[in-house]
Amino acid sequence: MGKVSLGATTMTLPTPAWLIGTYDAAGKPNLMTAAWGGICCSKPVCMTVSLQKPRHSYAAIMERKAFTINVAAEADVAKVDYCGIVSGKKADKFAVCGYTAVKSELVDAPYVAECPLTVECKLIHVQDLGQHTMFVGEVLDVKVDAAAMKDGKPDAAAIKPIIFAPEDRHYYGLGRDLGLAFSIGKELK
Amino acid sequence: MGKVSLGATTMTLPTPAWLIGTYDAAGKPNLMTAAWGGICCSKPVCMTVSLQKPRHSYAAIMERKAFTINVAAEADVAKVDYCGIVSGKKADKFAVCGYTAVKSELVDAPYVAECPLTVECKLIHVQDLGQHTMFVGEVLDVKVDAAAMKDGKPDAAAIKPIIFAPEDRHYYGLGRDLGLAFSIGKELK
Repeated sequence: MGKVSLGATTMTLPTPAWLIGTYDAAGKPNLMTAAWGGICCSKPVCMTVSLQKPRHSYAAIMERKAFTINVAAEADVAKVDYCGIVSGKKADKFAVCGYTAVKSELVDAPYVAECPLTVECKLIHVQDLGQHTMFVGEVLDVKVDAAAMKDGKPDAAAIKPIIFAPEDRHYYGLGRDLGLAFSIGKELK
Repeated sequence: MGKVSLGATTMTLPTPAWLIGTYDAAGKPNLMTAAWGGICCSKPVCMTVSLQKPRHSYAAIMERKAFTINVAAEADVAKVDYCGIVSGKKADKFAVCGYTAVKSELVDAPYVAECPLTVECKLIHVQDLGQHTMFVGEVLDVKVDAAAMKDGKPDAAAIKPIIFAPEDRHYYGLGRDLGLAFSIGKELK
């Protein structure tokens, strides 16, 4: 099978389409869509999210030292896309999306009540990499809709997260269950 | 809708299930499954992947200053799981999986010929965060199977990446197309 070289480009799969929640300098809650990020440590639990300096959310994170990561359900895909198109300097994105900003009790940032999965992060490290600055946040809590829990665990199929595919620039839903981790590979041992 | 607090835990969606390709000190190609990582910068193109210090791949990345990120197709989900269960200190995971290690011409690491999407990374930054060390790699090339290209772009639906859900510890496939990014949100403007 032949391979095509794309060169140095931001392409992998999957990438997320997260709503990053912040308070700006005026205290207005804001959201920004981010696909550049991931978990980066299990203890302390840490996640990265990368933003460009001109973004309204960049200044907010630098000032408040906090952000939330909100995983919207696939039914909200147009809202998620909207939050990546429009700047919080001009729009009240919570209002446009019909979202409720809940002030975190743990960090100085709001989360989205309507998102089935939210992560509250305290900024602990900032790394300027070039076009993007990588923020490392320590996770202080993860909240999941009670209706998306199954057998005491968050059920990914019930959360219905959105997956972003760079390059083809489409959003996708979560597909079929492929099996249990740390288990289905044992057959190869 | 009530929320359940899970506390500080490594839970978000989606996370990847990538095969990290390295050469160990003896020059043996190795693979390790990693779900903690993501894109972190567009220019230079950079990605993170986090490993624990005792991992065989940790020493390999520190020594060779390079790694590849291989996106396996969902049909290979048991192989991906296997590569997260067994250490390369003991097993030849390329051989067990029936994978071909191709020496990258750009970095000192092998990629998996059978994976539809591969990313070749040069190590540029190391950050010890606690249980995990975060490696930032500069992406020098992205290679895609010619059969997974559509209209000159990699087609996520043809690549069929594996998505890992922490906490419920299941793998999932990619689901249905939810729409075009930077487009479907315009209706809310």
